[in-house]
Amino acid sequence: MADYDLAGIGNALVDVVARTEDSFLDDHSLPKGAMILVEADQSRALYDQLGTAVEISGGSCGNTIAGFAALGGQGAFIGKVRNDQFGDVFRHDLKALGVDFATPSTVDGPSTGISLILVSTDAQRTMCTYLGAANHLSPEDVDPNVVQNAKVTYLEGYLFDRPPAKRAFVRAAELAHGAGQKVSLTLSDKFCVDRHRPEFLGLVEHHIDILFANEAEITALYETDSFDKAMQAVRGHCEIACLTRSERGSLVLCGDEVHVIDAETVEHLVDSTGAGDLYAAGFLYGYTQGYDLAKCGRLGSICAAEVISHYGARPESDLKALVAPALA
Amino acid sequence: MADYDLAGIGNALVDVVARTEDSFLDDHSLPKGAMILVEADQSRALYDQLGTAVEISGGSCGNTIAGFAALGGQGAFIGKVRNDQFGDVFRHDLKALGVDFATPSTVDGPSTGISLILVSTDAQRTMCTYLGAANHLSPEDVDPNVVQNAKVTYLEGYLFDRPPAKRAFVRAAELAHGAGQKVSLTLSDKFCVDRHRPEFLGLVEHHIDILFANEAEITALYETDSFDKAMQAVRGHCEIACLTRSERGSLVLCGDEVHVIDAETVEHLVDSTGAGDLYAAGFLYGYTQGYDLAKCGRLGSICAAEVISHYGARPESDLKALVAPALA
Repeated sequence: MADYDLAGIGNALVDVVARTEDSFLDDHSLPKGAMILVEADQSRALYDQLGTAVEISGGSCGNTIAGFAALGGQGAFIGKVRNDQFGDVFRHDLKALGVDFATPSTVDGPSTGISLILVSTDAQRTMCTYLGAANHLSPEDVDPNVVQNAKVTYLEGYLFDRPPAKRAFVRAAELAHGAGQKVSLTLSDKFCVDRHRPEFLGLVEHHIDILFANEAEITALYETDSFDKAMQAVRGHCEIACLTRSERGSLVLCGDEVHVIDAETVEHLVDSTGAGDLYAAGFLYGYTQGYDLAKCGRLGSICAAEVISHYGARPESDLKALVAPALA
Repeated sequence: MADYDLAGIGNALVDVVARTEDSFLDDHSLPKGAMILVEADQSRALYDQLGTAVEISGGSCGNTIAGFAALGGQGAFIGKVRNDQFGDVFRHDLKALGVDFATPSTVDGPSTGISLILVSTDAQRTMCTYLGAANHLSPEDVDPNVVQNAKVTYLEGYLFDRPPAKRAFVRAAELAHGAGQKVSLTLSDKFCVDRHRPEFLGLVEHHIDILFANEAEITALYETDSFDKAMQAVRGHCEIACLTRSERGSLVLCGDEVHVIDAETVEHLVDSTGAGDLYAAGFLYGYTQGYDLAKCGRLGSICAAEVISHYGARPESDLKALVAPALA
């Protein structure tokens, strides 16, 4: 019997959210919409030039598991922080939602990782991530008791940027499948896909049951400009694929089954950070609760719409109340 | 010639902003609307029981100087953080606005102070402050070059809770007046006034040129239930008194001159934290730029209305643009 509905493995990060002009991105050669990895000194130099900011727990998978728990799911998180103030913040914000987070903090070495999130006036976000302690996630941190007892183990593609984290990922997938559970992956970032395409392709084909990707990521994976071609390519490569397209909604594919899910209307688009993370939260909540795939997609859309209507990638509204009409 | 328009001296704090039910306040015997000082272990115990939070630079005087700088004023801040992550955050958010903040960080001892800000559903805020490094502010930290060269030195009443900070306060007032500059004080908190009434009364009578107080504070100072009586009492005790009354607006008193300032309409009252701080920012900006007192009060109202329409006590909108019509 599964103790957890969802176990997430990801980079444990605190977001430093600041509004920026596009000229700032140009001046620092930052590709708009992407996530780039930076070292401590680059992160510091960039922060020094940023305007006022707000600190909010983040991390792609952290956001997903937070949203999942806010919906009422039983969640666990595996990831690495240091025993510092930001580590405290990250840990607190998951525990406050009832998420089990038992990975021990590092007690020396780099500080808790941060992601400088630069939000443009058009609500697009560009991220400069200093992984810090998150870098120290190793296969030993993957607790078999967690992964084997979770209906779904969810992994963020960003982990692929560091070999030990990638090994942790593979170990988790093997443990989960060995226990008859499902494994889910989000491709995370087009540039991350570009950096690790062969490995992502192998994974999707052989190890992933539920895949999340946006248009840029899925077309990068299959090296095509055509969303339709990418969609045809992914069908059959994993049990379920959720392909998100921002305001154009999403597609949920499962064998011959195809669902077109409209995006929720968002009155004031503020900050697109976390849209994909919360889509996954809603979808996986529906999936682990046994709802049909169309309903799972609808839950994903509702949660994504909530998180892009304010700054920060963690939900602010009562998600349970928000999705209740869709479940009625 | 004054290099600064405003020098602020206050507790350097990072706010940990969380929404709470009133039952949480009751369960922990927290007087709604007040600021209580807590020790490190109490702060930790309370934080452990709080829901998810967001971290934003704060501190009453820090908020004022941030708003002042956002309006275009030249500001300096004197206060104490530690060289830790929250200290970095506090320092960054002032520097990003062009505020000079040269007080050296402590390198050992308690961590940077935090204020747990519990925001109720009616937007009222209750604060539990762990002063941490802010406690270590001493008279030696008051740089004469800053205070003597600022048109106005602004002090937060909260400093009165700790003797060395109080001495720093008195030193600053003497230096400022010795250089022919103005000294301003905010009473900060009714309970703080209760704790130090005789000293506050002496100060207001002899050392303060511009006083800020809300209704609860000014009636506490003069031990009366009547706002009108408190208002009569304060007239003549300092050059200018600004008495704020939330949605009922404010009064600006200066000798025989009395201005009634209406509150700005706020569409969605979200979090009242920082209302007084930002009123002071707007008023003092107007004052240091030579505007008449009615206009100064109007600027205060506009800035206060901005900050209570979102979470956090630092302005989020472009304050310059917001006050432009009032200055046209």
